[in-house]
Amino acid sequence: MVEDDSWVPGAGLLKDYQDPGTPPGTLSAAEGETGPSRMIVVSYGADDVAVREWTDPSALDGLRGDGRIHWVHVIGLADVALVERLGTVFSLHPLALEDVLTLGQRPKAEPFDDTLFCIVQYLAYRRQSLEKTQLSLFLGAEFVVTFQPRADDLLAPIRDRLTQGRGRLRHKGAGYLAYAILDLVVDAAFPALEALGDQLDAIEEGILEKPDQEDIENLQCARRELLVLRQVLWPQREVMGRLAREEHELMPDDVRLYFRDCYDHAVQALEVSENFREMASGLLDIYLTSLSHRLNDVMKVLTIISTVFMPLSFLAGVYGMNFDRQQPLNMPELGWRYGYLGFWAVAIAGIASMLWMFRRKGWL
Amino acid sequence: MVEDDSWVPGAGLLKDYQDPGTPPGTLSAAEGETGPSRMIVVSYGADDVAVREWTDPSALDGLRGDGRIHWVHVIGLADVALVERLGTVFSLHPLALEDVLTLGQRPKAEPFDDTLFCIVQYLAYRRQSLEKTQLSLFLGAEFVVTFQPRADDLLAPIRDRLTQGRGRLRHKGAGYLAYAILDLVVDAAFPALEALGDQLDAIEEGILEKPDQEDIENLQCARRELLVLRQVLWPQREVMGRLAREEHELMPDDVRLYFRDCYDHAVQALEVSENFREMASGLLDIYLTSLSHRLNDVMKVLTIISTVFMPLSFLAGVYGMNFDRQQPLNMPELGWRYGYLGFWAVAIAGIASMLWMFRRKGWL
Amino acid sequence: MVEDDSWVPGAGLLKDYQDPGTPPGTLSAAEGETGPSRMIVVSYGADDVAVREWTDPSALDGLRGDGRIHWVHVIGLADVALVERLGTVFSLHPLALEDVLTLGQRPKAEPFDDTLFCIVQYLAYRRQSLEKTQLSLFLGAEFVVTFQPRADDLLAPIRDRLTQGRGRLRHKGAGYLAYAILDLVVDAAFPALEALGDQLDAIEEGILEKPDQEDIENLQCARRELLVLRQVLWPQREVMGRLAREEHELMPDDVRLYFRDCYDHAVQALEVSENFREMASGLLDIYLTSLSHRLNDVMKVLTIISTVFMPLSFLAGVYGMNFDRQQPLNMPELGWRYGYLGFWAVAIAGIASMLWMFRRKGWL
Amino acid sequence: MVEDDSWVPGAGLLKDYQDPGTPPGTLSAAEGETGPSRMIVVSYGADDVAVREWTDPSALDGLRGDGRIHWVHVIGLADVALVERLGTVFSLHPLALEDVLTLGQRPKAEPFDDTLFCIVQYLAYRRQSLEKTQLSLFLGAEFVVTFQPRADDLLAPIRDRLTQGRGRLRHKGAGYLAYAILDLVVDAAFPALEALGDQLDAIEEGILEKPDQEDIENLQCARRELLVLRQVLWPQREVMGRLAREEHELMPDDVRLYFRDCYDHAVQALEVSENFREMASGLLDIYLTSLSHRLNDVMKVLTIISTVFMPLSFLAGVYGMNFDRQQPLNMPELGWRYGYLGFWAVAIAGIASMLWMFRRKGWL
Amino acid sequence: MVEDDSWVPGAGLLKDYQDPGTPPGTLSAAEGETGPSRMIVVSYGADDVAVREWTDPSALDGLRGDGRIHWVHVIGLADVALVERLGTVFSLHPLALEDVLTLGQRPKAEPFDDTLFCIVQYLAYRRQSLEKTQLSLFLGAEFVVTFQPRADDLLAPIRDRLTQGRGRLRHKGAGYLAYAILDLVVDAAFPALEALGDQLDAIEEGILEKPDQEDIENLQCARRELLVLRQVLWPQREVMGRLAREEHELMPDDVRLYFRDCYDHAVQALEVSENFREMASGLLDIYLTSLSHRLNDVMKVLTIISTVFMPLSFLAGVYGMNFDRQQPLNMPELGWRYGYLGFWAVAIAGIASMLWMFRRKGWL
Repeated sequence: MVEDDSWVPGAGLLKDYQDPGTPPGTLSAAEGETGPSRMIVVSYGADDVAVREWTDPSALDGLRGDGRIHWVHVIGLADVALVERLGTVFSLHPLALEDVLTLGQRPKAEPFDDTLFCIVQYLAYRRQSLEKTQLSLFLGAEFVVTFQPRADDLLAPIRDRLTQGRGRLRHKGAGYLAYAILDLVVDAAFPALEALGDQLDAIEEGILEKPDQEDIENLQCARRELLVLRQVLWPQREVMGRLAREEHELMPDDVRLYFRDCYDHAVQALEVSENFREMASGLLDIYLTSLSHRLNDVMKVLTIISTVFMPLSFLAGVYGMNFDRQQPLNMPELGWRYGYLGFWAVAIAGIASMLWMFRRKGWL
Repeated sequence: MVEDDSWVPGAGLLKDYQDPGTPPGTLSAAEGETGPSRMIVVSYGADDVAVREWTDPSALDGLRGDGRIHWVHVIGLADVALVERLGTVFSLHPLALEDVLTLGQRPKAEPFDDTLFCIVQYLAYRRQSLEKTQLSLFLGAEFVVTFQPRADDLLAPIRDRLTQGRGRLRHKGAGYLAYAILDLVVDAAFPALEALGDQLDAIEEGILEKPDQEDIENLQCARRELLVLRQVLWPQREVMGRLAREEHELMPDDVRLYFRDCYDHAVQALEVSENFREMASGLLDIYLTSLSHRLNDVMKVLTIISTVFMPLSFLAGVYGMNFDRQQPLNMPELGWRYGYLGFWAVAIAGIASMLWMFRRKGWL
Repeated sequence: MVEDDSWVPGAGLLKDYQDPGTPPGTLSAAEGETGPSRMIVVSYGADDVAVREWTDPSALDGLRGDGRIHWVHVIGLADVALVERLGTVFSLHPLALEDVLTLGQRPKAEPFDDTLFCIVQYLAYRRQSLEKTQLSLFLGAEFVVTFQPRADDLLAPIRDRLTQGRGRLRHKGAGYLAYAILDLVVDAAFPALEALGDQLDAIEEGILEKPDQEDIENLQCARRELLVLRQVLWPQREVMGRLAREEHELMPDDVRLYFRDCYDHAVQALEVSENFREMASGLLDIYLTSLSHRLNDVMKVLTIISTVFMPLSFLAGVYGMNFDRQQPLNMPELGWRYGYLGFWAVAIAGIASMLWMFRRKGWL
Repeated sequence: MVEDDSWVPGAGLLKDYQDPGTPPGTLSAAEGETGPSRMIVVSYGADDVAVREWTDPSALDGLRGDGRIHWVHVIGLADVALVERLGTVFSLHPLALEDVLTLGQRPKAEPFDDTLFCIVQYLAYRRQSLEKTQLSLFLGAEFVVTFQPRADDLLAPIRDRLTQGRGRLRHKGAGYLAYAILDLVVDAAFPALEALGDQLDAIEEGILEKPDQEDIENLQCARRELLVLRQVLWPQREVMGRLAREEHELMPDDVRLYFRDCYDHAVQALEVSENFREMASGLLDIYLTSLSHRLNDVMKVLTIISTVFMPLSFLAGVYGMNFDRQQPLNMPELGWRYGYLGFWAVAIAGIASMLWMFRRKGWL
Repeated sequence: MVEDDSWVPGAGLLKDYQDPGTPPGTLSAAEGETGPSRMIVVSYGADDVAVREWTDPSALDGLRGDGRIHWVHVIGLADVALVERLGTVFSLHPLALEDVLTLGQRPKAEPFDDTLFCIVQYLAYRRQSLEKTQLSLFLGAEFVVTFQPRADDLLAPIRDRLTQGRGRLRHKGAGYLAYAILDLVVDAAFPALEALGDQLDAIEEGILEKPDQEDIENLQCARRELLVLRQVLWPQREVMGRLAREEHELMPDDVRLYFRDCYDHAVQALEVSENFREMASGLLDIYLTSLSHRLNDVMKVLTIISTVFMPLSFLAGVYGMNFDRQQPLNMPELGWRYGYLGFWAVAIAGIASMLWMFRRKGWL
């Protein structure tokens, strides 16, 4: 579970940052991102829906103002020109675009003049560790623009619901689409939490069976992931709370009602992660007591052995002494007919009484 | 107390959840629920009361508007059609109905257009562990609709009070009925807390008598249950606080007064559970010091034995040496008349002085 | 200090509670209370004062409205009829009366129509443990009604001040009387805290001199009492804060000023108890380090003994071997003239150098 | 650092208190104070200043209303008559005067009709321990009255600034004088914190060099002082915050600006003390790991000695056996020419290989 | 990492302070600062920019009011006359100037009449430890004045951006310049956090490989630096929050938008430092369990050795006894033909069965 090179203390905790002193709003490709970006445009009204994948953003100019809702989803954050072009077409604020291109952002919701800008983190538990994928969303009057780094298309389920015309999605405007997307991200935390719970379960089983140093490293690893989790879930809860509470012209009242539900889920995910943290520290307690127990067990064995054999060895040593047997008082036992048998009788009686005492003390 | 398969870290902490991306308001049978639902309808005014158990919800249509108060209690959450039908008859919001069918919800109180929707968790300590049963309640102008999963009918005591016409219940409207139900749920926490207190008591006794690994597992188990408890009691307190504080047209002022009482109980239950948590961590301290004590005891025995017999064994070894006694300076003690007796005198004096020293040090 | 049967984890933490489902406002005798109640009535104005002890509450009817202030103090909570009668005479709310008869209530102040209702807990440190006695108080325009369970009369000092006509008490109305009573209860915490501080002091002394398991049980006991203390002092502070802050027609401004003083005392009592909790957990640290120290000491003795005598025993064993001395190379030392003296010289030199080394290491 | 009789757990934590039931506003000499009080009166305007030391408070009557500002500083809290006389002259509230005469008060600022009343604690680190001296201050339109218990005159530096006419002090009214006094008290915390920091430093050094039980007692002592510190600094910060924030007729806006500075200092002192608390608990961690290390070291020595000499002693024991050498298979080694040398060769090889193994394990 | 003389507990935690009683607004050279100060004046408009380094502040008089923005950056805090002169020219408040000359201030933002005054701390990780450099900033209508102690010029990157005319900096007024400077300081925390993360990483690696006392000292050192970090980052976050939230005439709305971004970064830096603190305490846990493990390992070796050789030594001792073999029952084994071989057979069988048992127990 612990891979040496990926296990940096700050990994996942520290966001990418630009050199201090860089002018704000300077756009540059997100760290680690390369290659061209994909741009998937979904235009829909109550009666029709069109999904197109474009590479040239200039086709976007004609779109706005035709009464339909346009959702532009960009996958890949290396094509700065595309991001700038989208910024111009939809009047997105440069500071927000800078945040889009800086990974590891804290979830937040911020109103700009005509748009509402949200950043959230999509959590997934893959390849034995927690991964977070940054999703940025701009909500305007008749459009939604979303960005994600190169990876699997996170929002495919939403697109499927749009094309299949299921539910309220096609009828309720851009705000409801934004809700659907954010709801997906919030709910994605639950399978991740479940996986993390299973991991804690496995560690606990390991500790109860046979505690070793590896368990403690896995536990430390899980605690680190819980820190990352909290760092994401705490502000995410706040984002949903703000969207559910604060009135905004782009967010009609009936959509705000749905965000209330979303907020509940965010709170619950956060609570579960906090409880996992308590459980993780409980596991450490089990671990330490378990080590203490084992030490006690080891020491009992040592003490029993010593207590039994030290007096006996002394006795054997006594009868191995070379006192001059010419003197009548020197070691007369050695000459007795049943001396040797007597020695064994004493030895066996000694062992038996010791063992009986230890059993009474509960050491056996 | 610890059964292997039921003891999953996340058990009771994580709520059931739908696959991320599922459209909101999609109703499906609650996890683990099967079979038909029971529906018990109580219609009452000041002077009359009727209790009927129906299976066909269509009979409900005729009920509303006859000036009496109708309370529909549904047991079992697998019959989605019934839930939907009730939703239509009483205009319940689809998001709320989705919550009804998802178990493990966080307690909450939410106003929808014409109804007030509450979710609470009924706590009970059965078969050595804490169980929570989700109870959902819709309060309307002249009706109350409640849902619980398949289990014993939780609300039978309320129905009994209604049919026996005791107290204010028959005279004070739907809001008071809702209060009576929620009050029952809040007060159910006290017997559960008492049982948990007994469990902690048993663990403490075990630890003080003879600490073993099983105690620590039981303690961990109890701490987990306290986490679940807190997860329920904390928001439940908030729910009662809101109902006592916030004005709502469905909740007349004199009923709000009763909720203040209910809020006090919820606060008290929460405080007790927080104190139990502190006590549980105090038990861990006792446990660890107890282990330390035992280790000290074991080591003292070992040290006493070694300190007594190691020098004596050395002495016996000395007189077992084979130096050539032809040389007058080699081991003359062996030829002395009282050599052997002298050896024993030294040995016994050594043992005695050691024991005296240990007694003075307080090791005996 | 620890008596087996009284030392239940939940003792003092959990309030008495009625069976869930009991209709609110159902009056029944408080748990553990029996026998008749005493009722002491003090009627006073600026110029006269009368103290009477009645058993029949019907005499109360004529009292109200004569321009004097009436203080009814009831000792004993088993006489439900008396409580109900008082409720009728002074128009006390049934929910409040139910709280009066349920012991272990959380301190609170609640306005009802014409009365202000307070519950506080009188703390006292008696027979080696902290006891709390519930005092309920109703403040009306011209009356004060107080209740306490059967025990010593807690409010005798106030009655003495009234009859002796000292201070402002006779001139300032019912609100000031209520203040005097609550101030007495708040200040009672200080002697109790002092006693608890002495107890912690005794435990500390015990731990520093010779830590044993009993100390830790006493400490656990004290921590439990600190939990009870906090459970009382925290809401009591809030009660005083509300009375000092919130305007109420029964509480004139100049009396509110006095409650500000009372609030200060409540805050201070709470702070002291919080600091005691920190000190108690500091004692646990001392205890654990002390155990560790002792283990180290024990192990040093064992190690010193073993290190000194194991090599010597080996040497004695060597010269006890029976190699055939016909062969010239076999154990020639045994035939040397000063062999035995040499052996002792080596042994003593070994012991001395070991001891010197241990002294240098600081183990002696 | 630890003196037996002064080291009571509650010392410095619990305030003095009057017997519960004492009427409020009852003045009695402060605990531990005896002898006559000094009264130093400074009267000043922009152009003149007069310092007089009076014993008879009746001379105060003529003072008020001459357009100058009068500062009365009382040292010693046993002369109740003087305090009452001052109360009459300057219309000070009896409740406030009671607080003046009760030592160990929580810092607070309270407005009374025409005066502003503050209590603060002057901290000093003297004779190896933290001392707090209670300073009470009444601010009126044209006067300031201050009280301190018998000790060095705390406010001499302010009087010096007044007589030397330095700075703004002579020109800015009574509010600025009050600021100067409170600022002095707030800043006095910094040298005390520095001394406490030095003490922690000394403890740390002691622990790192050679941890013994005394260090832990000193540490416990320092933690106790940090508790006292927090108990003072936390409300003191609040006092300054209120004075800087809340408008009051006696406190002109430009003086409030100075209190903002004072508030900053109070916050900083509090933060430093909180950080010291974290450091103190860090020292405990170092201490415990240090003990653990030493135990490990001791046990390694024991184990190395045992592992080396137990097998060798066994071997020596074998060749000390008395099997009948007539039988050719019994112990032929004893008759070999190089038997004894072989024994030593085996012994030395055994020791060497053991030591080599221990070195590889890092135990040496 | 730990240098003796620089490692004072309070170092970096306690601010410099003046003697209590010093009149406020008394200017004196900052502690540790000597020599002349540098003063770099940048005057710019949209079209031109001039950078001059002056030593005589009187040249500043002619500057104000020419429609350009003037930024005066002072390096070195020993030249009190210069600071006073600047105070006169730009009407800076004496209390603020006193703060400028007192190092170790808590970050804060305070409005004075015509200026906005901020203090922040520039963090850098140099020579194995965290350093903070105090930067003070006055923002006026058409000027910015900044101060830093003698060190590398922290604000060179801003001056470069100004002279190169990049970005919005030349066009957006003094408020934007202040933003650029504060943003630089906030972002400087990230490289420092990264370095601290690397340090924690190194400590963790050390602990996992071979825990020794030095690791724990380094860890303690890192925890101390995290305390300093928190002491800076917490109020810095607040400063940015105030600037982003509160309206101020010197701070136009579009600049406030940029401060929102700055606030986000400050929050993130704080969160990372809090998580580092949790990780540091997790490292302590690893360390302690690791010590426990090692102790267990050592004790197992000791116990195995003792358990194997003590019984064998006893057996060898038995056959080294000198019972008189004339008596037929005394030690007949010694005379058996295969006695010696039998002894070895028993010994080897004993060792083998012991080892097998230990392997089964998992001790090998």
